[in-house]
Amino acid sequence: MKAGILGYGNLGRGVEAAIARCDDIELKAVYTRRDPAGLSIATPGAAVKSAAELDTGLEDIDVLIICGGSATDLPGMTPKYAALYNVVDSFDTHANIPTHFANVDEAAKKGGRIGLISCGWDPGMFSLNRLYATSILPGGHDYTFWGKGVSQGHSDAIRRIEGVLDARQYTIPVEAAVDKVRSGSNPTLTTREKHTRECFVVAADDADKARIEEEIKTMPNYFADYDTTVHFITSEEMKRDHSGLPHGGSVIYSGETGSNGNKHVIEYKLKLDSNPEFTGAVLTAYARAIVRLNAEGVTGGKTVFDIAPAYLSPVSGEELRAHYL
Amino acid sequence: MKAGILGYGNLGRGVEAAIARCDDIELKAVYTRRDPAGLSIATPGAAVKSAAELDTGLEDIDVLIICGGSATDLPGMTPKYAALYNVVDSFDTHANIPTHFANVDEAAKKGGRIGLISCGWDPGMFSLNRLYATSILPGGHDYTFWGKGVSQGHSDAIRRIEGVLDARQYTIPVEAAVDKVRSGSNPTLTTREKHTRECFVVAADDADKARIEEEIKTMPNYFADYDTTVHFITSEEMKRDHSGLPHGGSVIYSGETGSNGNKHVIEYKLKLDSNPEFTGAVLTAYARAIVRLNAEGVTGGKTVFDIAPAYLSPVSGEELRAHYL
Repeated sequence: MKAGILGYGNLGRGVEAAIARCDDIELKAVYTRRDPAGLSIATPGAAVKSAAELDTGLEDIDVLIICGGSATDLPGMTPKYAALYNVVDSFDTHANIPTHFANVDEAAKKGGRIGLISCGWDPGMFSLNRLYATSILPGGHDYTFWGKGVSQGHSDAIRRIEGVLDARQYTIPVEAAVDKVRSGSNPTLTTREKHTRECFVVAADDADKARIEEEIKTMPNYFADYDTTVHFITSEEMKRDHSGLPHGGSVIYSGETGSNGNKHVIEYKLKLDSNPEFTGAVLTAYARAIVRLNAEGVTGGKTVFDIAPAYLSPVSGEELRAHYL
Repeated sequence: MKAGILGYGNLGRGVEAAIARCDDIELKAVYTRRDPAGLSIATPGAAVKSAAELDTGLEDIDVLIICGGSATDLPGMTPKYAALYNVVDSFDTHANIPTHFANVDEAAKKGGRIGLISCGWDPGMFSLNRLYATSILPGGHDYTFWGKGVSQGHSDAIRRIEGVLDARQYTIPVEAAVDKVRSGSNPTLTTREKHTRECFVVAADDADKARIEEEIKTMPNYFADYDTTVHFITSEEMKRDHSGLPHGGSVIYSGETGSNGNKHVIEYKLKLDSNPEFTGAVLTAYARAIVRLNAEGVTGGKTVFDIAPAYLSPVSGEELRAHYL
C-alpha cells in the first residue's frame, strides 16, 4: 500500500522511520506546508510535495498520516483530508475528542473513506488497555502513570520564561504510588502523589536563576501541583545528556471477581527510547488497518476501539492463529 | 442478552461469577453432562439442565460459553454447538488450533452463528498483546513468562504418582530472566532459565518420599527440564495455604525503530487471585462481543484477533470515546 505523510516534524519523521521497516507499505510522499524545495527527507525515492497538492484529492496514496498539532492543526486538517483520503491522526486534546470525531466521521462518510483519530500510545495503546480491562473486570479502577519521559509541552512552557535559552522537562512517576496501585489496594492519589517533575534549564548568562526557578515551580497547571526540581546546566550538557525523547508509562487496572472479591491486577507498561518513533509506529500499523478496512467497504470516523487487532498485522489470519495465538 | 454455560467445573463457575457482575447479561441455564438434579448453582433463577437439551438448537440463549477441557471435550463440543448457537471456548492446545478453528468455522458458517475459540488470557489476552506489539514493532522479540501461579496440569501429573494423596504445583518465573528481557537486551533463554517449579505434596503415611521426589523431578516434559523443589506438607497445610488458584504472568516484547535502533519495551502483566474467575471474565466479555457481531450479520469462526475492542464493552461508542480514549 502507498502512504503519504503530512508534516515533517518529530512525529512525521517517526512515521517515516516506521514505514521504512514495513515491507508492505511504500512511502510515496511527504507533504509540507513550507517550501518543499527546502526539505530533504530520509526515504530514497519518496517525493517532497506541497500540502496544497493534497487538495486535488488525486494524490496516488491509499492513506495519509497527518502529523500535526492537536491545538491548531488537526481540528481543521483531519476532517478536510478525511473527505479525500483515508487518514490517521494523533489528536490528543481529550476534551475535544467528541467534536473532532463527529467532524471527521461526517467528512469521511461523505468521501467514502476512513478517518481514524487519536492514535498513538496515549491516547491509543493506553486507551485500548483501559477498555480491555474495564470490559473484562467491570467496576474496577484504572490508573495511568507517565514517564520517565520528556514532556514537550512542559519543556516548551519553561522555554517561554524570560532568561531561559533551552529546557527539558522529565515527568517521573512516583514509584511508591505505582507500587501501591500494583498491590490492588485502589488508593486515592493526588496529582502530587503520582508524579514529580524534573527540569533541566539552560539560562542566559545574566539571568536571575532564583527567579526562573521560582517561576517554574509556581506555574499554574504545569508545575504548581507537583514537586518540581530544577537543575541549571550548560548548553553543552543539554546537548550531550538530553537530546533524546524517551517516554513511557503504564496503565494499571485493578478489579474483582466472584463473591469473595478475588483481586486481579492488569498492567500495561511502555518503556520507549523515542516517543515520536514509537507513536509513528503505532500510527503506521493503524494506517495499514484502515486501508484494508476501507477496501472492504468500511467508511467513517474510527478510533483504536473500532479496529479488530488482526487488521494491524500484514500476516494472514491463518498465520496469526498458528503462531501468535 | 441471555447466556448459557456448558460445564460447571472451576471455569464454569468462573463464568457464572463474571456474568453476575454484568448488568447486561442474564444467565439462563447451566448445562451439564451429569444428572442435573445433582447440581446446585450459585445464580438464583438460572436453570440447571441436561446438556442433551442443547441438541434441539431451541434453547433460549444468545450465546453458549463452553467450559470443557481442550484434550477431549472441546474438539467435539465446540463445532457441534457452533452450528446451533453463538459459542465461546477456551481451547488451548496450541498445535491443534488450526484444525479446531477450521471445524468451528465450517459449523458456525453453516448455522449462521459465530464460534470464537481459544479465549482467556493465554491464549487470549497474552495473544492479543503479542499481536499488537509485533504489528507496531515488526521484527522484535516476544517473551512469555507464567506465574507465580498454580498449574493444574502439573498438579495433576504429581497426583498420578503412587503414594501421592494431593499436590499443588506453582510455576514461578525467574526474576533475573524477566529483568534481562525487560532491559530490551533480547537474551536467549533456556526453559530452565525462564521458570522454576515448586511442588507441595501430601504423601500417604507409608509412602517413600525420596522416591516420590525423584519421580517428580525426573518426569519428562513436566519437570525434567526445570529446577524443581518439592515440599511435603500435611493435608491440613494444603487446605489452609494452597486452596486458591492464583496465576498470572507477563508478555514482554522488545523491538526497535529508526536508523539508530531506538529500543522499545512493551510489557503486559497479569496478577490474578483466581485463574478460573479471570478466565471466565474474559470469556464473558467476548461472549457479549460475538452476540453483538452476530446481530450485525457476522458469522463463522473467530478468535480474539478478529474482534474490535469496542464490542467487548456494554458502553456506547460515544461514551467510550469520551471517557476511555
